[in-house]
Amino acid sequence: MKKENNNQSNFSQAIGKQTVKFHNPPAIISRAAIVGQMEGEGPLSSFFDQIENDPTFGMNSWEEGESEMVRRAIQTAITKSGLSKDNIRYILGGDLLGQLIGTTFGVKNFNIPLFGLYGACSTCGESLSLGAMLVAAGYAENVIAVTSSHYGSAEKQFRFPLEYGNQRPLSATWTVTGSGAFIVSSTCDKNIMNSYPKITAVTTGKIVDFGVVDNMNMGAIMAPAAADVIYQCLEDLSMKPDQFDKIITGDLGKVGSEILIKLLRDNNIEIADRHMDCGVEIFDCEKQDTHSGGSGCGCCAATLAGYILHNLDNGTWKKILFVPTGALLSTVSYNEGQTIPGIAHALIIEHK
Amino acid sequence: MKKENNNQSNFSQAIGKQTVKFHNPPAIISRAAIVGQMEGEGPLSSFFDQIENDPTFGMNSWEEGESEMVRRAIQTAITKSGLSKDNIRYILGGDLLGQLIGTTFGVKNFNIPLFGLYGACSTCGESLSLGAMLVAAGYAENVIAVTSSHYGSAEKQFRFPLEYGNQRPLSATWTVTGSGAFIVSSTCDKNIMNSYPKITAVTTGKIVDFGVVDNMNMGAIMAPAAADVIYQCLEDLSMKPDQFDKIITGDLGKVGSEILIKLLRDNNIEIADRHMDCGVEIFDCEKQDTHSGGSGCGCCAATLAGYILHNLDNGTWKKILFVPTGALLSTVSYNEGQTIPGIAHALIIEHK
Repeated sequence: MKKENNNQSNFSQAIGKQTVKFHNPPAIISRAAIVGQMEGEGPLSSFFDQIENDPTFGMNSWEEGESEMVRRAIQTAITKSGLSKDNIRYILGGDLLGQLIGTTFGVKNFNIPLFGLYGACSTCGESLSLGAMLVAAGYAENVIAVTSSHYGSAEKQFRFPLEYGNQRPLSATWTVTGSGAFIVSSTCDKNIMNSYPKITAVTTGKIVDFGVVDNMNMGAIMAPAAADVIYQCLEDLSMKPDQFDKIITGDLGKVGSEILIKLLRDNNIEIADRHMDCGVEIFDCEKQDTHSGGSGCGCCAATLAGYILHNLDNGTWKKILFVPTGALLSTVSYNEGQTIPGIAHALIIEHK
Repeated sequence: MKKENNNQSNFSQAIGKQTVKFHNPPAIISRAAIVGQMEGEGPLSSFFDQIENDPTFGMNSWEEGESEMVRRAIQTAITKSGLSKDNIRYILGGDLLGQLIGTTFGVKNFNIPLFGLYGACSTCGESLSLGAMLVAAGYAENVIAVTSSHYGSAEKQFRFPLEYGNQRPLSATWTVTGSGAFIVSSTCDKNIMNSYPKITAVTTGKIVDFGVVDNMNMGAIMAPAAADVIYQCLEDLSMKPDQFDKIITGDLGKVGSEILIKLLRDNNIEIADRHMDCGVEIFDCEKQDTHSGGSGCGCCAATLAGYILHNLDNGTWKKILFVPTGALLSTVSYNEGQTIPGIAHALIIEHK
């Protein structure tokens, strides 16, 4: 791959092995985070747009509740933006459930063209990356990136019936009930350019499989994928960790975060002083008994929509590396004795 | 949405509500179709790269077999292209199985950045659309779009254990065991421009839900989505059906094809004289007892990689509208009483 595609260098640049840098970086002009009760009782409570105490969100099941949460996240982001929904050209979305039913039934009444995505809990990164790429290329003025997860629907699908009350090891994470929606928009208008956080580069991750087979230790599965994409992002852009105010992973939890820091340290990259994990932040793990931390597509999406972009808006941070992390767990492949591979995508988000 | 984004009009144009037209259309420079025994006994037999009689493809399960089929499709497409795999910047892929395990385990050893996609049987259209968009925008010189389905793994997940030998109504389709992989490449080099079929426009579909709840009549679910995206494509580009040599849907089968033709006729669009459905073509439905026809992500992917592109190569057809169709069926939402929504994506493929 050549370092620069001169033919299109007016709007973006494919750099190194896995990175695209935008010359005209798209902005996140609106966002919304809708979460469940437990997330609302956690330390990030004040940053969410809506906290819903009913686990089915007024619907008949957890799955329908997850879709309703997705619908509310999209509607809230659109309403806050002041745009009409007719101005949104694409929705890029996904969730953890088989055949993406959280997303499907959540987006269907918006009548907007859909790209359904799956990257487990990294899907928030995948949707924002592809959304930014489509906008920066001029295919759309505005797109919505949306992801969700729900504790009830995820546990039911991936582990045990909740009624069974199974024991959870300390390495286990707690699936966040939450959805984050983002309107990613063109910055041809300079007012938009200066008023909103922008996605300035994306590094797309590969599947990384260290052979872990423990579905109660998702952090250990995802940490190598996170290390791989962070390493490659820094390499492709010739950057150092201290050029970021924060390096923020999706849902490694406490266990996975330690592994990530160690893996990068072994490669002479030190991030311990600026690393943060959405899964560790979203719950008070001791008090809320969530063990290693939060997880799920909704974990980093709700944390980005709420807490992280707030800190970029108010100038606490100017430039972050945001790295949603996914463990590609399936009960079918797991029960057939396969490993659980990981994947992670990295985005540079800046605001001046 | 404005009709043209002047800022980027050098490489593409967002037209109408849902369409993108490429000024520098990406080419499909290589492709491969790997199928199972029954597809190999069907009328398109001679167009496939590999017919495997072992339903597990030499592995331990149908799911692992599906992944092996994906791996072979990608490897064959790369080998036929003469490219090194290091020249492939992204894989865009998906399948019908929960958490895309067919794709995940099939692509993981290629070590290429992955965008996991899900649009049920429309995923072939989604992967080629996004692949063409990324290439036309200059983010990549070459990408791979790959999709798969497997009769055994799909029936096991969506319907009954095969051992149960359930009766199938005549409206039912038969999931194709097949995978199609495509290398989509930049046409900055004029030799490539003239030597290969090109994707000249894409129309991205919305979820269309007519409230059908019969999981043994997928054609009826998908036909309205196909009608919607074909109508919008023609509208956006101010085109008529007779400007295409063929209008080819993914897997409506006989039942769904009739519904599609009628729905479009009700809107004053007549396609009966040039419509073809991959699901109807891939099997001899009478002799092979496949009722309404073939279905699955692999159905239209293998038919495109084999039969359709062959007919574009040899000049039988010059311009086609290719419309993979998907029914967003999930056993969870289905058993909770939800409808089965449909989605379809349209691509114009041309070769001079």
